Amino acid sequence: ALQGAKGRKSSGCFLIEGEKLCAEALKAGLTIETALVLSGFEGSELAMALCAKAKSAYAVHARVLEAVTETKSPQRALCSARIPGDGQAAYPLVALDGVQDPGNIGAILRSADATGFSALLGPGCADPYAPKAVRAAMGSLFRVRPAQTEDLAAELRRLRAEGAEILVSALDGENFFAHEAPAQRLVLIIGSEGRGVSEEVRAEATSIVRLPMRGGAESLNAAVAAGILMYGLYRGRPTGG
Amino acid sequence: ALQGAKGRKSSGCFLIEGEKLCAEALKAGLTIETALVLSGFEGSELAMALCAKAKSAYAVHARVLEAVTETKSPQRALCSARIPGDGQAAYPLVALDGVQDPGNIGAILRSADATGFSALLGPGCADPYAPKAVRAAMGSLFRVRPAQTEDLAAELRRLRAEGAEILVSALDGENFFAHEAPAQRLVLIIGSEGRGVSEEVRAEATSIVRLPMRGGAESLNAAVAAGILMYGLYRGRPTGG
Repeated sequence: ALQGAKGRKSSGCFLIEGEKLCAEALKAGLTIETALVLSGFEGSELAMALCAKAKSAYAVHARVLEAVTETKSPQRALCSARIPGDGQAAYPLVALDGVQDPGNIGAILRSADATGFSALLGPGCADPYAPKAVRAAMGSLFRVRPAQTEDLAAELRRLRAEGAEILVSALDGENFFAHEAPAQRLVLIIGSEGRGVSEEVRAEATSIVRLPMRGGAESLNAAVAAGILMYGLYRGRPTGG
Repeated sequence: ALQGAKGRKSSGCFLIEGEKLCAEALKAGLTIETALVLSGFEGSELAMALCAKAKSAYAVHARVLEAVTETKSPQRALCSARIPGDGQAAYPLVALDGVQDPGNIGAILRSADATGFSALLGPGCADPYAPKAVRAAMGSLFRVRPAQTEDLAAELRRLRAEGAEILVSALDGENFFAHEAPAQRLVLIIGSEGRGVSEEVRAEATSIVRLPMRGGAESLNAAVAAGILMYGLYRGRPTGG
């Protein structure tokens, strides 16, 4: 049931597939509800640690693991865990406005983790706890713990009032690489794959920037654009790489 | 049949779904074999242009279009086109070593298009003409026309002999942002999502670089890393943004 949004909402839990991600969940201190490990694999270090933390644990046949997961590649462990509370939306912050692809959400959380951004998901975004997003984020989902809001524009208005720079990425902005060094209180906004940033959110921008492109290319993948911008801003900060 | 690799190989054709991509295919001068347009939509400018170029064209019910495509969102046009010959592997070149996710292949081709890289796909890469890669690349697939090779290491050896800098991205490299300005003859290598660059390919590197990361993040999505590196190199070139 955790494959679907309804099952996650009613249970408050989500699915974590594979040994590597289960190990990351343990490391992050998530509350593990149920663990399933491949029969014959119960004695491994990970399986023992996972089963010790889980409220219930079962050794099961490969067919059971296959039936529970979406992925084709066989897994030796999976678990359900409680969806953690939202992380603090600290600066620098990347805010997503209608990013619909769960793979993009996951990839953006990885980049946020690597560059020290916290993350805020506005309405219309894919659920970061959907299995595809969890897989794409690797362990970064558990470290970044994205906050979610139903009214992104109102949240941005509040952040702007406390002096934040609201940097919107859009195809008609000024060249990002010519943009002055970012403010200490920085919010980067990434819009939806098809339609970009909504009018309402765009109205809160203090700057609008674009990545320069040559050739016939019209746009980049949303997660790629987010990564280039976060790395560009990361390097612009005193502590950046 | 074009959804599968066998169908594409036996026919030499691939599937192009949706009005926007069909328009890009026409603009790129691809050879259109069969066009299907939604019944009632035959009079549109795109449908007329598409049907004029296609060897055969049919107006069909929405159910037929749905049956042919993988996507859930309804399309008003699709076509099959001949797989074009490989583009020229000119400098700067991005070479992919076992990048298996078709969405990553597509996203990398978009970034290559935007930064003026040509592309070379080594063994183990997803087929760039698979429907998911075609959709992810938007029109950039038709402009970049990636070359493919079964022996990437041999190809790199040849390029190195003509003086190319072979820049491999790997987690144990030197900080990319501290790396000196790139050579005119530049080849950037992106490895597989799970295992990185193969030993054989790595042996051909003239430099190994990594993107700096903070926090617990171990790696970035392959397409995101490729995009950050291509933009970093693009800016480092005389004509770059």
